[in-house]
Amino acid sequence: MKFDDAAHPPLNVFDALCPSRQTLGQVTARWAPLVLAALSDEPIRFAELRRSVDGISDRMLSQTLHNLEAGGLVIRDVKSSIPPHVEYHLSEPGLRIAGKIRELIDVLYDELPTIMAFRAANTSQETTP
Amino acid sequence: MKFDDAAHPPLNVFDALCPSRQTLGQVTARWAPLVLAALSDEPIRFAELRRSVDGISDRMLSQTLHNLEAGGLVIRDVKSSIPPHVEYHLSEPGLRIAGKIRELIDVLYDELPTIMAFRAANTSQETTP
Repeated sequence: MKFDDAAHPPLNVFDALCPSRQTLGQVTARWAPLVLAALSDEPIRFAELRRSVDGISDRMLSQTLHNLEAGGLVIRDVKSSIPPHVEYHLSEPGLRIAGKIRELIDVLYDELPTIMAFRAANTSQETTP
Repeated sequence: MKFDDAAHPPLNVFDALCPSRQTLGQVTARWAPLVLAALSDEPIRFAELRRSVDGISDRMLSQTLHNLEAGGLVIRDVKSSIPPHVEYHLSEPGLRIAGKIRELIDVLYDELPTIMAFRAANTSQETTP
């Protein structure tokens, strides 16, 4: 729980009605962490982004970008060139959030050997009555 | 991308087949971030955990705990008391990962006023042709 300035009620993600809960949902939705981690303050085109996130479909990427844009984390720039083209970059809040997602991914990299060892040990014991 | 020791291939969450991708999926699955953030190294009972995460159902909490346990992040202790009772706490990797999730939530709390202001401004402009 955290107390903001007097104009705002205290934020608490454990409360289902707190607006932070919705933002956590957007940030951790399927594909969103990877798309956030792949974006930066440098504008990137859709096709390039799609290539960086292995396994994502056009539809999923469009939908994820749309939700992150509606959530104020991603900015969509339409360049009025001929042909016009669209680029995406992180907003200020998006940059900070994406930074934390990247830190989370680094922790996963660090912990993965331990996690894998644990799983291997537990798979062989899974036939206990 | 990150290079681990010689025994492991480089980990890269952007690669669909990297084991870090699966772990990221487990950690960011629906309800998982909240359950991880609500857990600690202190054992906690199911009912208590359910009360801390407003809106979660018994079924969703069971399933989330089961997946996190299978992923090596949560440890389930069965106390052979009469009646027997079950408690949950974070493993070592789970503790570090949950710590990052809590940091992410703190960033959301910090950024929420900006995010809300952005959304309010953009909702009123949403009727552009």
